This record gives sequence, C-alpha cells and structure tokens, in this order.
Amino acid sequence: MTQNTADTLSDTSSDTSHPVAPAPLTLLGLGAMGTALAEAWLAAGHPLTVWNRTAARAEPLAAKGADVAGTAAGAVAANRLVVVCLLDDESVEEALAGAELAGKDVVNLVTSTPGVARARAAWVTGRGARYLDGGIMAVPPMIGVPTAGGYVFYSGSSELFEEHRAVLAAPAGTRYVGEDAGFAALHDVALLSAMYGMFAGVAHAFAVVRGEEVDPAALAPLLSSWLTAMTGSVAATAEQLVAGDYTKGVVSNLAMQVAGVPTFLRTAEEQGVSTELLTPYFDLMKRRLAADARNGAEDLTGVVDLLRA
Amino acid sequence: MTQNTADTLSDTSSDTSHPVAPAPLTLLGLGAMGTALAEAWLAAGHPLTVWNRTAARAEPLAAKGADVAGTAAGAVAANRLVVVCLLDDESVEEALAGAELAGKDVVNLVTSTPGVARARAAWVTGRGARYLDGGIMAVPPMIGVPTAGGYVFYSGSSELFEEHRAVLAAPAGTRYVGEDAGFAALHDVALLSAMYGMFAGVAHAFAVVRGEEVDPAALAPLLSSWLTAMTGSVAATAEQLVAGDYTKGVVSNLAMQVAGVPTFLRTAEEQGVSTELLTPYFDLMKRRLAADARNGAEDLTGVVDLLRA
Ligand SMILES: NC(=O)c1ccc[n+]([C@@H]2O[C@H](COP(=O)([O-])OP(=O)(O)OC[C@H]3O[C@@H](n4cnc5c(N)ncnc54)[C@H](OP(=O)(O)O)[C@@H]3O)[C@@H](O)[C@H]2O)c1
Ligand SMILES: NC(=O)c1ccc[n+]([C@@H]2O[C@H](COP(=O)([O-])OP(=O)(O)OC[C@H]3O[C@@H](n4cnc5c(N)ncnc54)[C@H](OP(=O)(O)O)[C@@H]3O)[C@@H](O)[C@H]2O)c1
Repeated sequence: MTQNTADTLSDTSSDTSHPVAPAPLTLLGLGAMGTALAEAWLAAGHPLTVWNRTAARAEPLAAKGADVAGTAAGAVAANRLVVVCLLDDESVEEALAGAELAGKDVVNLVTSTPGVARARAAWVTGRGARYLDGGIMAVPPMIGVPTAGGYVFYSGSSELFEEHRAVLAAPAGTRYVGEDAGFAALHDVALLSAMYGMFAGVAHAFAVVRGEEVDPAALAPLLSSWLTAMTGSVAATAEQLVAGDYTKGVVSNLAMQVAGVPTFLRTAEEQGVSTELLTPYFDLMKRRLAADARNGAEDLTGVVDLLRA
Repeated sequence: MTQNTADTLSDTSSDTSHPVAPAPLTLLGLGAMGTALAEAWLAAGHPLTVWNRTAARAEPLAAKGADVAGTAAGAVAANRLVVVCLLDDESVEEALAGAELAGKDVVNLVTSTPGVARARAAWVTGRGARYLDGGIMAVPPMIGVPTAGGYVFYSGSSELFEEHRAVLAAPAGTRYVGEDAGFAALHDVALLSAMYGMFAGVAHAFAVVRGEEVDPAALAPLLSSWLTAMTGSVAATAEQLVAGDYTKGVVSNLAMQVAGVPTFLRTAEEQGVSTELLTPYFDLMKRRLAADARNGAEDLTGVVDLLRA
C-alpha cells in the first residue's frame, strides 16, 4: 500500500559525461540555485531560455548561450518544459499568473510544505499543464558535479518525469517518490528535519567540551564517525515501525537508556551548558517508559508515536 | 594548549589475531558489559580473576577458565591491574571500600560525568593506586569483534595506559584523550549527546511521513545517507570554532536557514506532528540572528555560544 517502495524509487545520478539528446527548456529564477542549474543545463548542451525578475542576473548566462526572455510569460511560451526555481510559493504564483500554461510541463523546484505543493499542483493542472514538484537535496556548489552526491526528490506526474528524466538529471541525481505532488516536499522536509536534529546534537557536543582543553578539530572526526556509525539505527527503527514491534532487535533498551539520562544532564550542568536541546527528547523517552512498564524492553521507537499523539 | 590534539590521540584497534603476552588482570562486575569484556580477555588468553555481587553470573566464565574470587577485596588482591565495570559510581565505592588499593592499577569503565570521574580518581589515587577512567563507545555485542569498530575512551594516568595498553586493547579499540581523568567521560558524553540529537531528528522525520503512504523502510536508506553526508559539516563547525570566525566557508548562511524554518514547522503542523523536538534549536538560530544582523552571514555555529551563555 506504499507508493515509494524500493522498487518504484528511481535513482539516476547526475551524469554529464554521457550527453543526452539536446532538449530545450525554460528556467524561471536565477538566484544562487537557479544560476547553478542554468549553468549545468548549458554545460550539458541543452538549449535554455531563462528569465529573472532582476534582468542583470541573466547577463552572464546570455554570454554562455542562454536565450533571455523579457517576461516570465515570454519565457514560458518559448518551451514546453518550464522549470521554476524562485524564492517561495508567492513568487511562483506572481511569476506564472500572466503566463499561458495550457500544454506545458511545469517542474517546480521551490522548497515548500507538502500542502503548499499539492495546492500549487492543483492550480497548475487547473490551467491545463502537467505538474512535477521537486525538493532539492543539494546546495548550489553540488549542482552539475556528479561526484557531489546531490539529488532532487520529484513527485507528481510520472509521465512528465519519465519524459524529461534525462534533461532533469543533468544538474543532479533524481529520485521519483510518487504521484502525490506533496511527496517530494514531504521527503525533503523529513530529511532536513532529521539533519537539524543532528546539528542540535552536534552543537550540544561542542558546547560540552568548550572551556576544557579539548581541540574541537580533534573531536570532529570522532563525532562524525560516531554519528555515521549510529545512522545504522535508522534502518532498525524503520523495521520496528513496519513490524509495529518496537522490541525487535533491541540492543540498548529504553529502561537502560532512561537510566543513563541523568549522566547527560548532569554533565551539561557541570560544564555550564544548557540542556534545552536535549531535554525534549529525553522527556519523550521518559513519557514512553512511564506509560507502560513493559515499554522498558523497547527501543527508542515509541517516541515517534508520542510526536503524533 | 590542547591535550588531545590529533598527534597525541592514540588509536589502537581491537585485534585478537595477534595475541599479546598473557597479562593477568581482575575484573569486577559481570553484567552485560562485564561479561562481554571477560569473554574477550579469556579468548585473548589473559589469566582473569572475576568477581560479581551475584555469584551465579561468574559460573559460565569459570567454566571458560576464569578464577572466581569470593569477595571484591579478594579479586583486587589477585592482580595489579583491576578493571571495574559495575552499574554506577555508588557501586564502585561500595565494591572497593574494603579492598587494599595501594600499588594497584585501577581502570574504571563505569559511565559517569567528568566531575564524578575526577572525584573517583582522587579517591582511588588517595588510596595509593594509579587511576585510568574509561568511556565505552560500544554495546556488548561489539566487544571482542575488531570489525565492529567499538572503542573505549581512556583518560587519567598515561603511564598506566601505556603499560597495560595491549591487554586493554583486547576487547575493543582504545583512544587515550588526556591526563585529566574526566576527559574520557567528557568525550563519551559529548558523542552520545550528539547521537541523541540525531535520534530526535530521526524520530521527527519518521513521524512526519507517518500516516502518508511512505514506506519507512524505503525512507531509511535515504535518511541514513543524507545524515552521513551532512556529518561533513562537523569538521567545518570545528574549524569555525577554532578560528573564532563563524563566516568561514559558509554554504547556507544563518539568515537563509532561519528563513526556511517556517517550512519545517508548517510541514509538521500539516502532518499533525509536534514540533517540540525541533523548536529549541530553531529558537537558538533565531536568537543568534536577532542578536546582530551581521550574524546572518554566519553558519549555524553561533548556537554553540548560546548554549554556554
Ligand atoms: N540555495 C540553496 O542552498 C537551496 C537548496 C535547496 C533548495 N533551494 C531552493 O531553491 C529556491 C531558490 O533558492 P535560491 O538559493 O536560488 O534563492 P535566492 O538566491 O534568494 O534567489 C531567489 C530568486 O527568486 C527571485 N524572486 C524572489 N521574489 C520574487 C518575486 N516576487 N517575483 C519573481 N522573482 C522573485 C529572485 O529574483 P531577483 O534576482 O529579482 O531578486 C531570485 O531569482 C528556493 O525555493 C530554495 O528554497 C535552495
Ligand atoms: N551495556 C551497554 O550497552 C553499555 C555501553 C557502554 C557503557 N556501559 C557501562 O558499563 C557499565 C556496566 O553496564 P552493564 O550493561 O554491564 O550493566 P548491567 O548489565 O546492569 O550490570 C550491572 C552490574 O553491576 C553490578 N552491581 C550493581 N549494583 C551493585 C552494587 N551496589 N554492588 C556491587 N555490584 C553491583 C551488578 O551485579 P549483580 O549481577 O549482582 O546485579 C552487575 O554486575 C555501566 O556503567 C554502563 O553505563 C554499558
């Protein structure tokens, strides 16, 4: 009953070494990300029409062979495939308001929530175009660099995706995650949220050693490799969620981990560090344990349920 | 001015394939971790004396060649090197209270705070013994398995560490991090704190996709590889802390990242997920930006300072 099971997840790497047939496209938005995308498409030999609100930002791309349109509507008219990389959803509405969208293939790479992406999909398809939403898992310097590992989550029209897959793959890898136009944003936000959690933990770790004679540069590789090793638990959590059994393959159980919490809090206090980044998670661990003594044999997975309670 | 710069950080892997000279030792505590350690030392051919409060837990080890002492004091008397792996600091005090420690080499592997480790070091050395503290970065199934990558942070007497290094390396890798007896705990807690931050982020990510037709098992490898890639930022953070310049090599600046925060909070709300695990970090990002508009050009590193304010 899932849309993005492993076999339907498509994964193509950004690969400019095997040039694909030149396919013309339009790009709206030449900020940091739009410019990086434009350069990757030009480098891959695709005829490109660009538009940017502030016209000056198009000049360096014109010198590299891009056609520059004077209006967003003109840029949209130039090609069937129209990629949008503007600031936010409001700027997308503004830029596309005066354009004729019937028969177009609109690919919206603007970061948004799943709900906003779904609403934009309805708006675009209501105007007679096909719609694909994208969530970019890369920063501009990774675009057009196949070895950098960047990729874009895509969701929405699978026909659009399949038809333009080769040209979409020029700047970064592609991962199609379902017909639901909100799924690219859903995956994008899920991964970035997890990353901010990790960043919070890393900030706490550096704060704890500060003021002691510990070289942050010596701690960094230990911290990175420990976190990398601990990502192994992500697959275990997923398995437990799928099985609906949080005691599956538990190595350090919840009761034992809750017993260890005071050591982390007291260490922070000894070191003069606020515990604000860690207490919310520890509190959920304790709540799960307090709810039912049998939960003590579980892994930490029950916290996921408490977040949706 | 740092004690654990890269060149003084010693790193030996657990390696039972090159047997070292048999060196006798005593181990107090045969819980899950103590039993795993005992088995690794016996397997490596070291004469081992064990003691456990509940005597029955020593029986399987006796069958494998361990000497079983009837009292903690008796076990301590048997060998110069005495490793302690009891539940907590109180149990260490209880077990060692009646033992003659003069001339002993005490290695305390009980998880504690840096402050507690320093106090225990003073207590032990005050009784005429040398003291080494340890923080185990492994779970019992990783002990004695060189490929598992587990290791123990050690700090305190470097003479003790150098003298017993080979025998200490039998169950797991070793990393000596300084003469300060609190440093093993400091490193241990720093790494585990960062891990709980990552776990919090992962729990939030799974909660966000729940209720949608997303297979957690399909999300897991994407999440793991994204987090692994993002651990690259740990070294950048360390560099910025060392330089005291948080604008060094910034890819996504604080102002841009704060602008993206509403997308994460709104997505959680759309999906019916509490934002409690993410808001404390986002709040610190915002506080750093609000403190001085110029901080907008920085990375996220300023959060570390706010934790110690
Ligand atoms: N940069 C990254 O690291 C990154 C990573 C992943 C995803 N993304 C996403 O990619 C998208 C673009 O990001 P970016 O880094 O390129 O942003 P940016 O450098 O700030 O550029 C913003 C772009 O939007 C245009 N714009 C803003 N308001 C507009 C309006 N009302 N009407 C028309 N155009 C408007 C700007 O035009 P002017 O030149 O006229 O101001 C500019 O082209 C965003 O959704 C972002 O979340 C970025
Ligand atoms: N397990 C892990 O994953 C892990 C990982 C890293 C570090 N550690 C650390 O290793 C240490 C031991 O952990 P463990 O997993 O082996 O714990 P455990 O399985 O709960 O065993 C606890 C041990 O402490 C003894 N003990 C408890 N209270 C005592 C007292 N008052 N006097 C004498 N002995 C007492 C117990 O003896 P009885 O048999 O008589 O109850 C048992 O030998 C802890 O500091 C823990 O934080 C464990």
